[in-house]
Amino acid sequence: MCSTMEKPYKVFVLRIGHRPERDKRITTHVGLVARAFGADGFVLAPPDENVVNSVKKVLEAWGGKDFYVGVTSSPRSYVKNWKKQGGAIVHLTMYGVGVDDIIDEIRRDPRDKLVVVGAEKVPKFYFEAADYNVAIGHQPHSEVSALAVFLDRLYEGKELNLSFNNAKIVVEPSLRGKKVVTRKE
Amino acid sequence: MCSTMEKPYKVFVLRIGHRPERDKRITTHVGLVARAFGADGFVLAPPDENVVNSVKKVLEAWGGKDFYVGVTSSPRSYVKNWKKQGGAIVHLTMYGVGVDDIIDEIRRDPRDKLVVVGAEKVPKFYFEAADYNVAIGHQPHSEVSALAVFLDRLYEGKELNLSFNNAKIVVEPSLRGKKVVTRKE
Repeated sequence: MCSTMEKPYKVFVLRIGHRPERDKRITTHVGLVARAFGADGFVLAPPDENVVNSVKKVLEAWGGKDFYVGVTSSPRSYVKNWKKQGGAIVHLTMYGVGVDDIIDEIRRDPRDKLVVVGAEKVPKFYFEAADYNVAIGHQPHSEVSALAVFLDRLYEGKELNLSFNNAKIVVEPSLRGKKVVTRKE
Repeated sequence: MCSTMEKPYKVFVLRIGHRPERDKRITTHVGLVARAFGADGFVLAPPDENVVNSVKKVLEAWGGKDFYVGVTSSPRSYVKNWKKQGGAIVHLTMYGVGVDDIIDEIRRDPRDKLVVVGAEKVPKFYFEAADYNVAIGHQPHSEVSALAVFLDRLYEGKELNLSFNNAKIVVEPSLRGKKVVTRKE
């Protein structure tokens, strides 16, 4: 099985401002949301092997060998290079334009997208480098929920039915209880 | 200002299996999502004053004095009592029925809803006590994103335009940069 979603461009998620001592679980959840909600890659700054390994373990068990997982110690250069290569920057921030006012324009924009997800304080650089500063509501909540709802809007809900290449475990939806199918290679 | 969403019933979020030493930030984000995405209350098991205080600080600054924040050391009794009083239980689990196959039925169900959000391993009790076991996709991601997308489906996106009573800070949406209005009491 593989995705049946149309994907006219790549979407990568860049998680900036990660603090290894505090954010391991939140950042891992950001990476898992990127994968589960249909993005093509996840890049982490600064590097943290613990998070990378946690996301890779999920890839091995649940599939998605084409999902890219990487790190950078220079997220600003990453953003600049993305732009140089013709890509667009989407920065998720509660201070931005409401997602429902801008998502159609973003969806139609043919450029590859880098979705930048920060922690509490994001330097001005990212607000200025962004082609789109997008708010998932204007209330404080979480980078995890912001990314999920953004990708859900971008892919119009179709991402919830994605299936993944090379999955060893697949869930069978169930009214009550857990059913999984385990596949041997 | 106050919400303009129709709310024919109450929606509370019960976060179970919280581990204070590991989950402080994830659980705080669950509480913030509950508030920001239109739920009426957040209940935490087991109790953790750090999380409660973090959520209450956001209520003070960003408004929502009617949002209930509580704790319980007996989440099973909480679920049983909710049912005894005529309420329905929604359990978010990747093993459940796909949200888009069941959300209309849940939205029309006139009972107050308790949305149960677990951590990694949820006891069978909750699968069996639930009126609805609901999956936000069948891939591993996060209780934070699962709750956000569930409430977003339940409220059909209207929750992103909620405004909150007694807010001291309100964001002005902006293409580039941060604009806030600060209100003195």
